[in-house]
Amino acid sequence: MASASSGRPTLEAVASVAGVSRATVSRVINGVPTVDPAIVDVVRRAVEKTGYVPNLAARSLVTRRSGSVALVVSEPPGHRSPLPFLERIFTDPYLGRVTAGAQEVLRPRDIHLAIVPADPPAHDQVVRYVRQGHVDGVLLITSSAADPLPARLVGLGAPVVLSARIAGGGMPDGVPAVDLDQAAGGRLAAEHLLATGRRNLAVVTGPTDAPFMRARLDAFAATVTAAGLGSPAVAGADFTRPGGEAAARTLLAEVPAVDGIFAGNDLMADGVSTALQAAGRRVPDDVAVVGFDDSSAAAQAHPPLTTIRQPVAAMARTMAELLLDGIDAREAGAGDTTGPVRDRVVTFAPRLVVRESA
Amino acid sequence: MASASSGRPTLEAVASVAGVSRATVSRVINGVPTVDPAIVDVVRRAVEKTGYVPNLAARSLVTRRSGSVALVVSEPPGHRSPLPFLERIFTDPYLGRVTAGAQEVLRPRDIHLAIVPADPPAHDQVVRYVRQGHVDGVLLITSSAADPLPARLVGLGAPVVLSARIAGGGMPDGVPAVDLDQAAGGRLAAEHLLATGRRNLAVVTGPTDAPFMRARLDAFAATVTAAGLGSPAVAGADFTRPGGEAAARTLLAEVPAVDGIFAGNDLMADGVSTALQAAGRRVPDDVAVVGFDDSSAAAQAHPPLTTIRQPVAAMARTMAELLLDGIDAREAGAGDTTGPVRDRVVTFAPRLVVRESA
Repeated sequence: MASASSGRPTLEAVASVAGVSRATVSRVINGVPTVDPAIVDVVRRAVEKTGYVPNLAARSLVTRRSGSVALVVSEPPGHRSPLPFLERIFTDPYLGRVTAGAQEVLRPRDIHLAIVPADPPAHDQVVRYVRQGHVDGVLLITSSAADPLPARLVGLGAPVVLSARIAGGGMPDGVPAVDLDQAAGGRLAAEHLLATGRRNLAVVTGPTDAPFMRARLDAFAATVTAAGLGSPAVAGADFTRPGGEAAARTLLAEVPAVDGIFAGNDLMADGVSTALQAAGRRVPDDVAVVGFDDSSAAAQAHPPLTTIRQPVAAMARTMAELLLDGIDAREAGAGDTTGPVRDRVVTFAPRLVVRESA
Repeated sequence: MASASSGRPTLEAVASVAGVSRATVSRVINGVPTVDPAIVDVVRRAVEKTGYVPNLAARSLVTRRSGSVALVVSEPPGHRSPLPFLERIFTDPYLGRVTAGAQEVLRPRDIHLAIVPADPPAHDQVVRYVRQGHVDGVLLITSSAADPLPARLVGLGAPVVLSARIAGGGMPDGVPAVDLDQAAGGRLAAEHLLATGRRNLAVVTGPTDAPFMRARLDAFAATVTAAGLGSPAVAGADFTRPGGEAAARTLLAEVPAVDGIFAGNDLMADGVSTALQAAGRRVPDDVAVVGFDDSSAAAQAHPPLTTIRQPVAAMARTMAELLLDGIDAREAGAGDTTGPVRDRVVTFAPRLVVRESA
């Protein structure tokens, strides 16, 4: 292996090529505005010619920017799932879609995105990582109002944008967030099942301490009862395929006449569909299944899933834009009174995507 | 939101509490060895009392360490898949297992792990990120000998550990790597199918520019022909479930008598099994299916998959240990002549896990 710094161009080399002092090169690199534009030009050409890359630590002492942003995926304490946290977040297509959307906005600004899984044992480490200036801001995915990490990160003063509006838990007001109209999604699912003649409805839900899940579930149930039917049966699961399968078996045992199931995400809907078919029920002929997300899992399922589309990549783009606003505002020295240009909470609308399962 | 630095304890506050100068606090924080131990003690207590966290940029100018390590997942140019890169890596359970294994070793050392997806448009950015000192070392997952990123990162002089042995492509010798005995895995799959009476064998392979895939495939074919049978039919896919389904349909059309299929990973094996059953073939009665990895997808499949177990978490732990060796050796100023304590290429053995599909 080459030694640590072999052949790496130095500040001295740039100064020598440009015919100026080290201090002048340093001022240009750090964007000090009082340098003569002609000299800036000469130094920039010398930087290009030598291939010099400013030492990040030295540069960030001046600019206070790291050029990196973290996508933190937080798991609140006490969340229990049969599948370990990492395996769960890295098998749900959601994270790939968020990353893709955020990168679209960050790459043209040459800002690097690092993905940081944060289960409870890592919470302290993540707080320290952000506090120490490794990143200029945080895109934070969290699914529970009981999660203490969001308020801790916001409390550090670093720009943070949340993947959903979160109230309580010590969270200050005004933290930028991007959310989906979750209740509208639950309504759309119920209306589609009712419109296609289903009358014995049930829900396979994710953990209901996740506000987004609670909102989908409540709106679904309210729409069903508003149509004059009884409250839908509810079986709990954990957002995974095997969880959906187990919940469907429970529902079949408890509500044998079930003819329509709304699942809180596509992976559970896929599991529900698999378990129904294994039990001899045809999908959608005997039981209709509606998912949520419109992830790749929906199109790949057998039969392909009717689902509620969540524009995840567009939402992640907006999260990244809000974060850049926050980083720029912080650098410009704007205080609490000068909010970013964009609205601080942006809500997207879901829509129904009809395939074959319902 | 709180303003940028409201209430964050300063170096001045520590100096004031300790009753020493700023310079003394700085020397203690940066581990300068000439400070009187009694003063070190006083300053440390003041740091604790104030909750002061050293500015990372300032500290890393001295220690040259960032306290972070990157897990870079590289995609070589020209790789084509129906699924975008991010969605593919974030739906394969492999990445979650690697992350979990690496974290087990890094967390006790308080080293932060950031996951960095690196498709070709991001290669330059990742090189810059590492060159600028954002991380102390790189765990690099790559699947192609044609991938230029590994040699570029190694060329920077930063400690790098590869997920597989890679030759060619400008890669210097002696780069630490952790690998599986891929050929042994292919042999185990063939031997199991032959031992259970299968005679019309086929392979669903991932891209064969991946040396690990090539090695599994060649060893499987060699074992089959050594048993006096013809070369197995081969259908290409892309390591995804839908890819496995399509490949199985191709095989059924071209080799209707096929009675045993070896797939290059569990996701493709799951797709193969799904497509076989959709075509009216029973698994394993009509066609046996063997996967590779023993990921969660294998146990969750219907029927559960017989597969070749790859100890991914243990391999990732070893990658992290090799990387820490490299980081420590670099800090100690060891040159090329002083290798890390551990062997530079560690090869793990696969084993057969028999479930229901074969």
